[in-house]
Amino acid sequence: MTHRIALIPGDGIGIPVLEAAMRVAEKASPGLLVAESFPWSCDHYLQTGRMMPEDGIETLRGFDAIFLGAVGWPEKVPDAVSLHGLLLPIRKAFVQYANIRPHRLLPGVQGPLRKDAFDILCIRENTEGEYSGAGGRVHQGTGDEVAVETAIFTRTGVERILRFGFEQAMGRSKRLASVTKSNAQKYSMVFWDEVTRELAAEFPEVQVSHYHVDAIAARMVMAPETLDVVVASNLFGDILTDLGAAIQGGLGFAASANIDPTGTSPSMFEPVHGSAPDIAHLGTANPIAAMWSLVMMLEHLGEGETAARIIRAVEATTARGIGTVPGRDKTDEITAAVLSALEE
Amino acid sequence: MTHRIALIPGDGIGIPVLEAAMRVAEKASPGLLVAESFPWSCDHYLQTGRMMPEDGIETLRGFDAIFLGAVGWPEKVPDAVSLHGLLLPIRKAFVQYANIRPHRLLPGVQGPLRKDAFDILCIRENTEGEYSGAGGRVHQGTGDEVAVETAIFTRTGVERILRFGFEQAMGRSKRLASVTKSNAQKYSMVFWDEVTRELAAEFPEVQVSHYHVDAIAARMVMAPETLDVVVASNLFGDILTDLGAAIQGGLGFAASANIDPTGTSPSMFEPVHGSAPDIAHLGTANPIAAMWSLVMMLEHLGEGETAARIIRAVEATTARGIGTVPGRDKTDEITAAVLSALEE
Ligand SMILES: CC(C)[C@H](C(=O)O)[C@@H](O)C(=O)O
Ligand SMILES: CC(C)[C@H](C(=O)O)[C@@H](O)C(=O)O
Repeated sequence: MTHRIALIPGDGIGIPVLEAAMRVAEKASPGLLVAESFPWSCDHYLQTGRMMPEDGIETLRGFDAIFLGAVGWPEKVPDAVSLHGLLLPIRKAFVQYANIRPHRLLPGVQGPLRKDAFDILCIRENTEGEYSGAGGRVHQGTGDEVAVETAIFTRTGVERILRFGFEQAMGRSKRLASVTKSNAQKYSMVFWDEVTRELAAEFPEVQVSHYHVDAIAARMVMAPETLDVVVASNLFGDILTDLGAAIQGGLGFAASANIDPTGTSPSMFEPVHGSAPDIAHLGTANPIAAMWSLVMMLEHLGEGETAARIIRAVEATTARGIGTVPGRDKTDEITAAVLSALEE
Repeated sequence: MTHRIALIPGDGIGIPVLEAAMRVAEKASPGLLVAESFPWSCDHYLQTGRMMPEDGIETLRGFDAIFLGAVGWPEKVPDAVSLHGLLLPIRKAFVQYANIRPHRLLPGVQGPLRKDAFDILCIRENTEGEYSGAGGRVHQGTGDEVAVETAIFTRTGVERILRFGFEQAMGRSKRLASVTKSNAQKYSMVFWDEVTRELAAEFPEVQVSHYHVDAIAARMVMAPETLDVVVASNLFGDILTDLGAAIQGGLGFAASANIDPTGTSPSMFEPVHGSAPDIAHLGTANPIAAMWSLVMMLEHLGEGETAARIIRAVEATTARGIGTVPGRDKTDEITAAVLSALEE
């Protein structure tokens, strides 16, 4: 059985890291993934005036999964344009409402914290909330200008991500941390808290903790070992998962899956890091986050055995100290080490 | 010359830490501060139905400064009620638009990071943005419920906090980090970026960096030594300053000033920590954050010499290992050590 994958390398280091990960996939299981690559990116925008063609979403719909590198190159195209033209519409159009990001230290990686025993699974809402894109500006360019940005939370959106969080907690330690800022945001976040309490009644075995986003951010640094599954809104999840990436040694190690849990649409897998224009020419992009994202894609596609072999090869590589220090090793060296670990 | 101070101990550990700080003030300069205490708190709400009396703001207006402990006790009063009934209206009514929070390790304190050389000054917008309180809920309690929360950014609000940030940067290393999420929030945060660029032209000596909130959160953990003055919106500043508190060893050390830079209204000084109901009965609340906030208040009141003596006494205390480990030492022991350090 093969799987049809849409590759969107995107911009900057998205391109080499995706290529590296696909070499690993091919080595681990030749022919398993049949990939088609799409050049949608900021360069594509400069050539065509669009980040992806008008029928881009329809094109992607036919694939079993999407594997994305990184999007954005602010010197070429403003981020607000490039992200709203490619990454964010895919997440929303395919109702990939669960953004899953695991945070733990790979063997051999020294994180910035003195503590190194933690294993956090962040579940981030991925389709609405603070990323709704609703808002506007009046009196633009004058002293009276006002800009508004409206976060929109629907019952459907909040309930499904919280339910997903509870289910993930059931499959792990049965501890769930729900993140809000309900002491300051009295509509959206109070609503989120209410739905959390309702679902808690449905999952009596799950021990739920309510944290304000500021407090849990501090906790991720002070006492990450006390957290397990964390469920948060789009924006709070965005911030906490970059923090998660930091404590796991940096963005070079942070993987993510944008899942449509209903299975109706293709899910998308991407490293958490951006396109990193400043280092894109150095050849030192760390492909490990992309490889780990590939592992999550293979698990999602039911290829757990291949996924397990790849994560073991990645761990064998970092355990040997390869790819563990940001910017030191070449993308190619790290990839070669993973490829050879796959043979062992 | 004396200064009239309104004390609002508030809830939980707010009460003992404020008392401890006032003992230190009195010892350092007897009679300098003439304090009047107000019992406004969650208990007050249970008794009167209000967090503060209707004329609370008018009462406070006559003081030279406000010194606040902590507000909130969710088991008694929902946070959304208690905070919107006391802390947040004071910040807004007195246009304390600059919330200043210094993050560095006091001597003898071991932070959670391997790196310990950093000195960050966070400047947080304090009157609008994501804390505007605008929003609502429709179809409440049904499957069609929608909650909206609108962040409102005004030209006045954004420009004055950024200008304050630039001025602070001029007084320090001339490096300013401006925080947005303009790749996802295309109205509010793009506006913030535009105003930042305009002001950058007015302050050509200041080297400005633009960070997305997720990226700077990671940076505060990975490379805090690369940051100096950080200016952020109300919500982003809230999150980043709890993170700042974490890297400086915990909320027991994080001080803050809510400043009206025009001097028209009283400014307010408060530890960043909350009321901590769970530990309020233990007698181990760390008064150091409150004492440092007192130091900021004295500086604001022009009492730099007394302020300097107090911060030196606090540093002498932590350097001896007293008050440096969360929950270990009693509030009274820490206070006694600071009082005796003041005599040396
Ligand atoms: C690039 C940006 C819009 C995106 C986000 O905020 O979702 C990124 O930070 C991420 O975490 O995937
Ligand atoms: C208590 C809460 C409303 C407050 C805030 O978010 O401003 C606190 O977290 C702070 O940082 O002062």
